[in-house]
Amino acid sequence: MSKDIGLFEAIYSQRAVRYLKPDPVPEATLLRLIECAVKAPSGGNSQPWKFLIIRDEELKKRISRHYRESWERVYGAKASSPPPLASGVRRSATHLAENMHTAPALILACIEHNGGPSSMGRGASIYPAVQNILLAARGLGLGSALTTLHKGFENEIKTLLGIPDNVETAALLPIGYIAEGDGYGPTRRRPVGEITFWDTWGRHNGSQD
Amino acid sequence: MSKDIGLFEAIYSQRAVRYLKPDPVPEATLLRLIECAVKAPSGGNSQPWKFLIIRDEELKKRISRHYRESWERVYGAKASSPPPLASGVRRSATHLAENMHTAPALILACIEHNGGPSSMGRGASIYPAVQNILLAARGLGLGSALTTLHKGFENEIKTLLGIPDNVETAALLPIGYIAEGDGYGPTRRRPVGEITFWDTWGRHNGSQD
Repeated sequence: MSKDIGLFEAIYSQRAVRYLKPDPVPEATLLRLIECAVKAPSGGNSQPWKFLIIRDEELKKRISRHYRESWERVYGAKASSPPPLASGVRRSATHLAENMHTAPALILACIEHNGGPSSMGRGASIYPAVQNILLAARGLGLGSALTTLHKGFENEIKTLLGIPDNVETAALLPIGYIAEGDGYGPTRRRPVGEITFWDTWGRHNGSQD
Repeated sequence: MSKDIGLFEAIYSQRAVRYLKPDPVPEATLLRLIECAVKAPSGGNSQPWKFLIIRDEELKKRISRHYRESWERVYGAKASSPPPLASGVRRSATHLAENMHTAPALILACIEHNGGPSSMGRGASIYPAVQNILLAARGLGLGSALTTLHKGFENEIKTLLGIPDNVETAALLPIGYIAEGDGYGPTRRRPVGEITFWDTWGRHNGSQD
């Protein structure tokens, strides 16, 4: 199962897999994902992370209700100006919002901090670990997707799971085997030339070579 | 050069490489790193990133002076209560702070936003891409390290590079070939059991299996 796929093969075929089977994922496999997470860098190698693996049915349902409500407010029926989404993404993300609780496990990635206000820089010590989980899932034949909509109910979810004040939740990752019809594969992105600048913002010409 | 190493081999041997040769890195190789970056997930697949590749000697020097000053204030002689660092990390990170400008290229990962305040969640759409760059560097035999200390001079660096107001810088990555004596290899982390909780914060026992 842990046959080592190529690094670039994994990177180039990673995509959000939002249709998951309910079949349980062995504990050792879930821990393998966390082992990959902690290999990521963190500021001063402080390793400020904690990973909550949620399998309890009632907890999954309560978290999923929050997630779905947040989805409705941001992208769904309750959104005043929903961000644009490609139709395929909208369909599968709606499915996930309605079925998050059916994933056999949810991983809630958390970061301990000094009590200061949230800032993007804090994410430098947790989202690389989250990306390692997603790549490792791809390598192990599991599906997952990076979601953050639960943060619309940050306080409720922290209370539900007993998470202390000096901890911020970073991402909620549904984990499961891939349902038929979904899967990994090539992804499309805007061309690299459009989003790369050389030496100065807006300068597209790099030709020093 | 782009022989595909294994995903798990890359994840398990990734480490900050802070001693870099000054030899130039071909433009195509730098663009390969960006191509891997943009394969990462972003919120609603919005791809809100821009990557500035800095090779101009004067710009590298000016950015590096800010970086070094920030290093001195946080970890160095000007720090009132410097965070703890393992001695090897301190030595190599000091070397990097004093020699950032000698890397043949710096990649400044940036994110465009709606003008709202910085928050950790914003990082979910840029640090996975940064981690892809670091893993791709490992796969291509290049050295790099995730740094954020430049953010102590966020405004100065944005002005220097002409970066607009609605853009936040996320990470500064020195890129270069690995100097003799440095390199990738196994890393030590706190045990997975210590940082994994099951269903509830603080619960170390997962045995459902």
